Amino acid sequence: MEGFEEESLLLLRERVISTIIGIPVIFYLVYEGKILFLLFIIVLAILAQYELNRIFAGMGYRIPRFLPVSGSVLFPFLAFYAPNGRESNYILAAVTVFLLLHLMTLMFLFPRYKAGEIAASFLGGCYCSLLLSYLILIRKMDGYGFHYLLMVFILTWCCDIGAYISGRLRGRKALCPLVSPGKTLEGAVGGLFFCVLAAVSYHYFYPHLFSYPLMILIGVIIGGAVEIGDLVESSLKRLGKIKDSGDLIPGHGGVLDRFDGLLFSAPVAYICIKLLSL
Amino acid sequence: MEGFEEESLLLLRERVISTIIGIPVIFYLVYEGKILFLLFIIVLAILAQYELNRIFAGMGYRIPRFLPVSGSVLFPFLAFYAPNGRESNYILAAVTVFLLLHLMTLMFLFPRYKAGEIAASFLGGCYCSLLLSYLILIRKMDGYGFHYLLMVFILTWCCDIGAYISGRLRGRKALCPLVSPGKTLEGAVGGLFFCVLAAVSYHYFYPHLFSYPLMILIGVIIGGAVEIGDLVESSLKRLGKIKDSGDLIPGHGGVLDRFDGLLFSAPVAYICIKLLSL
Repeated sequence: MEGFEEESLLLLRERVISTIIGIPVIFYLVYEGKILFLLFIIVLAILAQYELNRIFAGMGYRIPRFLPVSGSVLFPFLAFYAPNGRESNYILAAVTVFLLLHLMTLMFLFPRYKAGEIAASFLGGCYCSLLLSYLILIRKMDGYGFHYLLMVFILTWCCDIGAYISGRLRGRKALCPLVSPGKTLEGAVGGLFFCVLAAVSYHYFYPHLFSYPLMILIGVIIGGAVEIGDLVESSLKRLGKIKDSGDLIPGHGGVLDRFDGLLFSAPVAYICIKLLSL
Repeated sequence: MEGFEEESLLLLRERVISTIIGIPVIFYLVYEGKILFLLFIIVLAILAQYELNRIFAGMGYRIPRFLPVSGSVLFPFLAFYAPNGRESNYILAAVTVFLLLHLMTLMFLFPRYKAGEIAASFLGGCYCSLLLSYLILIRKMDGYGFHYLLMVFILTWCCDIGAYISGRLRGRKALCPLVSPGKTLEGAVGGLFFCVLAAVSYHYFYPHLFSYPLMILIGVIIGGAVEIGDLVESSLKRLGKIKDSGDLIPGHGGVLDRFDGLLFSAPVAYICIKLLSL
């Protein structure tokens, strides 16, 4: 038990150090929003894809190698370079071509891949690359792109940290024991609470984005999305019989472990902002 | 052998009758392009989805019932009702929500569904409903929507009929024996030839759409898409160990059997027209 505590403390220290280095780097990339930011998203998408394919391998699925990587480059690239206001046209066309390519792979390489494997490759490509591309779409939004994207990052992080702290301090009741035995109801409520708190504070600094009530609503929605995204990644890992998706970020596990919440909060925030600013 | 010939003739007669009734009905719906056309696409998408789920069941996959149907209604509905020029925004958001719903189903109903089953449901929903929605997007195109969509239908049908006739008359060499033993190289070449011929004739009647060389290019591309779409559906059926996807249309098999080429030619034509009219 003591050994476990020590290991846990070491993990926490690594985690804090990674965070202290990681946050300013991401902050700088988000602020600049130029080609380095695009490259950052592409690298994240490729790494996430790689980790997801390991999870799929754990389920016994063989995924064709070239297809998911092509999506990891294609979606962020189009999101970044498409003319302003026409990003959706390009990305929807890319999703369609991505789908046709998968179906053609099933046929041309028949019978090497099962339909479920090709489908997993398509789902995985969209999960890792399409969802991450929403970070670029938010950054490119008219006027307040940087403020919106900063909001998404801060709310997502606060939800994660809030859930971690509340879970450690008061975690009693298991939230979803089949999917992830470590997560507690108290942690989830705490995460949501911290997320709303962060949204309210964000309004204090940037009052021009949305009104107070809308900011609270956004806090609840983003917080919910982060926690669902977290559980989705956990269920994938559980199905693939893998504990950490990778070990790239000291103390955090893999890229997928760290960005699982963001994969859900980014598209949900994008759609919310679009609807609320209609 | 004689019994086989007789049965084959009966099938051909049924097929011709269905075609004689079907073509004017579809022509009218395409010409009107109003709510009846939308309902037609939704019904097609639901039937195709139902048949595809039977094929997936043949592979041993259980697909959640409510998810694919929601896609069958959602995508065509948004394609039809979204404001002109903003369809892609709505449909891309819908694809993203459709993806998130699938991932959430995997998690909330854990461990009822395997990742491959959820992925197959997502792939199948996009295959049947998203691809069919391109028919609506083409119909809504500025200015010549009706002419474009008519072109897609005519070229697709001519490719199918050309392949059938050439295959029956001169078919010797198997095209892709593992996927579909009945299809021949001669049939494929004949289909492509008829498709280009139809494109050239179409240019004669509607010379304002594209120049002659572009029309020939479109004929080759659409013909190729139709034949690949055909083989894709065959490989799905082969994997699901099912001969006909259904028996709804006398002499033609199921909806998926009849519209498999169109599922590929519609999005490919849409992207082509967009690119060529830039």
